[in-house]
Amino acid sequence: MNSKAEKELKPAIAQDYETGEVLMLAYMDEEALRLTRETGKAHYWSRSRGKLWKKGESSGHEQLVKDILIDCDEDTILLKVEQIGGACHMGYRSCFYRTINGAIVGKKVFEPDEVYGKKGKE
Amino acid sequence: MNSKAEKELKPAIAQDYETGEVLMLAYMDEEALRLTRETGKAHYWSRSRGKLWKKGESSGHEQLVKDILIDCDEDTILLKVEQIGGACHMGYRSCFYRTINGAIVGKKVFEPDEVYGKKGKE
Repeated sequence: MNSKAEKELKPAIAQDYETGEVLMLAYMDEEALRLTRETGKAHYWSRSRGKLWKKGESSGHEQLVKDILIDCDEDTILLKVEQIGGACHMGYRSCFYRTINGAIVGKKVFEPDEVYGKKGKE
Repeated sequence: MNSKAEKELKPAIAQDYETGEVLMLAYMDEEALRLTRETGKAHYWSRSRGKLWKKGESSGHEQLVKDILIDCDEDTILLKVEQIGGACHMGYRSCFYRTINGAIVGKKVFEPDEVYGKKGKE
């Protein structure tokens, strides 16, 4: 299996470096963090697919990393990024496009079918 | 033991509702989310202490919740909050007060010893 123990992964928050909008949360292992630092583009560990992925590898919606912060306990990462296109596979700028009561508050910036086609979501 | 399976917990990002600053990341179980919604003050599940806690219960640095967003996969919560005092037990406004290279970029807003005394960190 490709699964990794949860303890090896750290949640990583991606935030628009200009507007402050929180775009998404994903997980990083050491390799994802290393590649992110080396390439300047956000890489994550996909828990559902059990593999490393570069954000935007199928959509083109990459995240250009401007800064990387770490929290006090060193168990959470905050990426300040320039988001190309939208962060969310549903077509929104941010994955947080709904309130907990179901109201849509986010901005739709692309049509998922046009970007992902039949390949499935990133 | 008071520990909870990781799968019952969702990461919750607290963000300043006015400035957009990401303040901290903690975890919520259903009870923490229910109490947060009912009281309008952020509650979390402490993984290290194995118990529910109200943010600010020892420091007074409560988080007044203005809005609650959920992400596309419904596995991460984003709280828009008014942060009283500082979010970080180290005395900073945000727990993300350092770059990954160790540079201090955050704003110190209180002295931990004065707030927590010998009681230990919140």
